[in-house]
Amino acid sequence: MDNLNLDLAIRHNRTARATLTLSHNGVPLANQDMRIEQKKHKFLFGSTWGESTIAMANGDLSGKAQEQAELRNEHYLQLFNLATMPFYWGRFEPVRGMPQTQRILNAARWYQDHGCRVKGHPLCWHTLTANWLLEMSSREILEAQVGRINREVSDFTGVIDTWDVVNEAVIMPIFDKYDNGITRLCKEMGRIHLIRTMFETARAANPGITLLLNDFDVSPAYDILIEGCLEAGIQIDVIGIQTHMHQGYWGVEKTRRVLERFERFHLPIHFTETNIISGELMPLEIVDLNDYQVTEWPSTPAGEERQAREVILHFKTLLAHPAVEAISWWDFVDNGWLHAPAGLLREDCSPKPAYDALLKLVKGEWWLPQTKMTTDENGRLSFTGFMGTYELSIGNQKIPFSLDQKGEVALHLNL
Amino acid sequence: MDNLNLDLAIRHNRTARATLTLSHNGVPLANQDMRIEQKKHKFLFGSTWGESTIAMANGDLSGKAQEQAELRNEHYLQLFNLATMPFYWGRFEPVRGMPQTQRILNAARWYQDHGCRVKGHPLCWHTLTANWLLEMSSREILEAQVGRINREVSDFTGVIDTWDVVNEAVIMPIFDKYDNGITRLCKEMGRIHLIRTMFETARAANPGITLLLNDFDVSPAYDILIEGCLEAGIQIDVIGIQTHMHQGYWGVEKTRRVLERFERFHLPIHFTETNIISGELMPLEIVDLNDYQVTEWPSTPAGEERQAREVILHFKTLLAHPAVEAISWWDFVDNGWLHAPAGLLREDCSPKPAYDALLKLVKGEWWLPQTKMTTDENGRLSFTGFMGTYELSIGNQKIPFSLDQKGEVALHLNL
Repeated sequence: MDNLNLDLAIRHNRTARATLTLSHNGVPLANQDMRIEQKKHKFLFGSTWGESTIAMANGDLSGKAQEQAELRNEHYLQLFNLATMPFYWGRFEPVRGMPQTQRILNAARWYQDHGCRVKGHPLCWHTLTANWLLEMSSREILEAQVGRINREVSDFTGVIDTWDVVNEAVIMPIFDKYDNGITRLCKEMGRIHLIRTMFETARAANPGITLLLNDFDVSPAYDILIEGCLEAGIQIDVIGIQTHMHQGYWGVEKTRRVLERFERFHLPIHFTETNIISGELMPLEIVDLNDYQVTEWPSTPAGEERQAREVILHFKTLLAHPAVEAISWWDFVDNGWLHAPAGLLREDCSPKPAYDALLKLVKGEWWLPQTKMTTDENGRLSFTGFMGTYELSIGNQKIPFSLDQKGEVALHLNL
Repeated sequence: MDNLNLDLAIRHNRTARATLTLSHNGVPLANQDMRIEQKKHKFLFGSTWGESTIAMANGDLSGKAQEQAELRNEHYLQLFNLATMPFYWGRFEPVRGMPQTQRILNAARWYQDHGCRVKGHPLCWHTLTANWLLEMSSREILEAQVGRINREVSDFTGVIDTWDVVNEAVIMPIFDKYDNGITRLCKEMGRIHLIRTMFETARAANPGITLLLNDFDVSPAYDILIEGCLEAGIQIDVIGIQTHMHQGYWGVEKTRRVLERFERFHLPIHFTETNIISGELMPLEIVDLNDYQVTEWPSTPAGEERQAREVILHFKTLLAHPAVEAISWWDFVDNGWLHAPAGLLREDCSPKPAYDALLKLVKGEWWLPQTKMTTDENGRLSFTGFMGTYELSIGNQKIPFSLDQKGEVALHLNL
């Protein structure tokens, strides 16, 4: 699929052809001038928390550090409407009974107050889980895990209503790098029974919630796991797919093959952890990315140009597919996970070409800036816009509306 | 696990310590001489049909061909108590409505009459399926597939009561070598829904049946598929695992890792399609074994010695694990599938060292030949034997009995 066809598919799948009929006390507002402006995308463009933002939201920063955090946030809010918050059990509750709830809640609220939907990641994962589980029996681990989900989901209700519930279940029971409580639990319960327990616990704590299963495995194993869960009656709301492309961009064909594998479930798909790096690629012989240990991994000018091209192609490929509803970038700023040049910003928070190019799409080509329009003699006007929320202004009066569906949409606004 | 430990585990898992108490009209038969002889193994040692045996059972052979078939069968029945019969749809029913039922039934009965349990392979598989499905809608393919299972299972009841129901479901919907009706059907139904339909159809046609899911994929994908089926309430009686080791013997460690992956379901495991070849190994870069096209693939003396060592180690590894209940060799004679030197017999039906070594175990080390024993003053005697059926003879009187469970077994025989 070439660029032109991608753009056509994006137009087809992401835009509404809106016809607004304006009236005042039942009388059409004929030949009325106004301004219409997009306020937000329906599509979720997101990234990760940022340790500096958590510190800032908790009043821990000052001086240069505060300035850097503000710079990051400025770039963040220009581009994104989604933020992933960290709930790695071992870090969230390093000492049993002393969770970092307030600290993460402050940061999550900051993102929410600044127009972002907030997602929690993850509620159940074998990596970075609490070490103190190792002293427990399987039954006690299960009780602690269920209690933990119940606590977090309840404590964050209204701020975080979207969760990566179980992370990397495909390898969870066979993970053998080190002993941990969750692998033990999954080995004993089986993947599907574990997933059912965690999903049902989360939903019971907050029935209006959106729950993801998330994995980096895009082989038939994950496909079959999802099928098994659905056949067993487990309500998965969204399929989460990780794409840490430290070893090279997948390309359009592989991305489309993966989409074909998962579209058959007729569930929304979120690309939850996306990276294309702007430095030297990680060697292909590395199987577990965590095994690649370097202290420095620079971003290069040539790498940044390549990254920009690939990022645009990847975002376009995903937006061209109707099942995809979110793309989250993993590590907005360089020198995060693995010290990789994986950010859209450099370590000094200056935007890379990929950031600029993406912004040109998200807030340019795919965006309706404030635009003057006039109704016809019947009080009608038409325009095409990307799905999302909009604001119509006549003088000082502002009327919010939203375009939630693609294709022809007729709206009646009574002023 | 070394050889000694394997032998100990085999003794532990496969033998019974039997105490027989003999009486006549309620009176213990004290100090009575008798002979005890093993007649059959409970463990299933098997192989495939043999085109020559099908031809022979249908009276098609004469002269040298008949002699060769008889030679094969003689070696077969010395070693095996299980036979797999072919039900590849495209060959079994090349013209719709004209199945080869009688021909296969004659051969299956021949094996049954000669003491073998008979298994049908497979009822639903995308490879070698009927070409005439391609002209049908998915609904018609499903009707034909269900009708086919119902027909075969019914027609063979009492002769074949064990079936590989669905073969290679992991790749079934993504198989892309050529278009075929079953891949289309699986893509539409999903793997688990298809498996459910085929298993339920087979069981409805013959409720007392033993049904296998069979796959060459031993990755987490198959493990997860089985879990998904079981969580969905599908009754799988036996897990079938293929091991076509044309690219080299797995070794004990890999075999044990695979067993660990599948033992958690607490279901019997059959190694349904086992090959270790006695010639040059197939290059590792071949992914689908069917892609390796050679016209000649000789068995070599060095290869035959290696094969013998590996066959013995493989059989011992499997018998040492309590979940394994059957091992079927694939192609008893060389120059079958892929022209490979995969047989235990050479093309002229002469036994290779692997055959001789295996026979020494199955009918030697693991076997109780006719043995003279004497009861004590209470009419009791004890012996240790591999699980299976036995015959006790006193004079001309013959009493059959069986050892069905490992460990201590007490039997009372009233003569």
